[in-house]
Amino acid sequence: MGKTIGIMGGMGPMATIDLFEKIVAHTPAATDQDHIRMLIYNNPKIPSRMEAILEQKEDPLPEMIRSARLLEAAGVDFILIPCHTAHAWYEPLQDAVTIPIVHMIENTVAWIERHHPQLADRILLLATTATLQKRLYQHAFSAKGMRLHIPSQAEQQVIAAAIAEAKASRIQTNPHIGALNRLFAHHQEQGVAAVLGACTEIPLLFPYLDEQMKKLDPTLFLAKRAISLAQE
Amino acid sequence: MGKTIGIMGGMGPMATIDLFEKIVAHTPAATDQDHIRMLIYNNPKIPSRMEAILEQKEDPLPEMIRSARLLEAAGVDFILIPCHTAHAWYEPLQDAVTIPIVHMIENTVAWIERHHPQLADRILLLATTATLQKRLYQHAFSAKGMRLHIPSQAEQQVIAAAIAEAKASRIQTNPHIGALNRLFAHHQEQGVAAVLGACTEIPLLFPYLDEQMKKLDPTLFLAKRAISLAQE
Repeated sequence: MGKTIGIMGGMGPMATIDLFEKIVAHTPAATDQDHIRMLIYNNPKIPSRMEAILEQKEDPLPEMIRSARLLEAAGVDFILIPCHTAHAWYEPLQDAVTIPIVHMIENTVAWIERHHPQLADRILLLATTATLQKRLYQHAFSAKGMRLHIPSQAEQQVIAAAIAEAKASRIQTNPHIGALNRLFAHHQEQGVAAVLGACTEIPLLFPYLDEQMKKLDPTLFLAKRAISLAQE
Repeated sequence: MGKTIGIMGGMGPMATIDLFEKIVAHTPAATDQDHIRMLIYNNPKIPSRMEAILEQKEDPLPEMIRSARLLEAAGVDFILIPCHTAHAWYEPLQDAVTIPIVHMIENTVAWIERHHPQLADRILLLATTATLQKRLYQHAFSAKGMRLHIPSQAEQQVIAAAIAEAKASRIQTNPHIGALNRLFAHHQEQGVAAVLGACTEIPLLFPYLDEQMKKLDPTLFLAKRAISLAQE
């Protein structure tokens, strides 16, 4: 019968749709029945991961555990979490269920190492301020002996603002698209060759960013990994 | 906490994404937490509804009941089914669960009666051959005293072919877009003023059809109904 993919979504909803759509679009299928079973829990009531890290607000872990256990009880074979920042709680979350949770950040770094080795040390991180502060990507890159370019504090404010607007469903009309293009052009002069969309709202903006910018999409890498795991 | 919407999806997956996206896009929200909880079971292994009706192949009802009960057991408050043809089994499916299943076809007709009364008797049905043969929309329209324009047999073959291509993820590249535009132009001369996308793959094609064509999207009507039910 094949496996059932579980998606712990809602962080945010548009990013959840993006992962769902990338899995469907990359599954080789001529009829409905060729597609993969998926159970998607879009739970936007999980408290803000950013506010918990940056402002010590409500802990999202209990509601994340409830989400993961709902998926587990319903019979999914493994879980994907389309929210990089949520991976700050990866270990206690994985401990709370018996099925595997695919680690999106480790998957991204393994994908880059395997498919884009020429980009190592030439990648600019576009992430939430919380993901940045928790050093989630810096650690994963340095564990593989790769270096990551980090935006300046002023640039990070632009990135955070672009993410906040995307979470309010302003994608094509996002007011920070021009600033993101300029930010990339500036880093290109310093040797950066690609941007890493390390917040799941960032790849939503990719179609509207400068075509010349090489874009790495962890949501797509996770979708492809999930398809191969489901078909094992 | 608000209600949780259940979506019995996978019939097909792209149509499921379309409903999910329309609910998210039409929910007034500035942050993740303003969005609605949804549990989406994308189960594409439900046997073909068309083949069951037209060729007496495998009965999809047992797998549909399994899907609905999975959503019920996981705690959703009501269920949406983004597949018009599946509504041929609406009654036994509703009997198999204790939570309400919103009837997509009745919702569409009620929406048109309320919001588009000037279009009554001037609407052309674009549906699967199975939905057409089961007279699902003809009955619902005549119950409200409205008449529906039905494509000729040759035209229905074009519509069925367009749906099959959309189910294979050929949306923008669907080879039948020109034929659908000509079909509409022909009916316009007979007094038709709008097309009804009464198979959930048809609204996926709407952005690529003639702009002059007035399009009625039951997936959008269902999304708006679900948002208001969830916020009750």
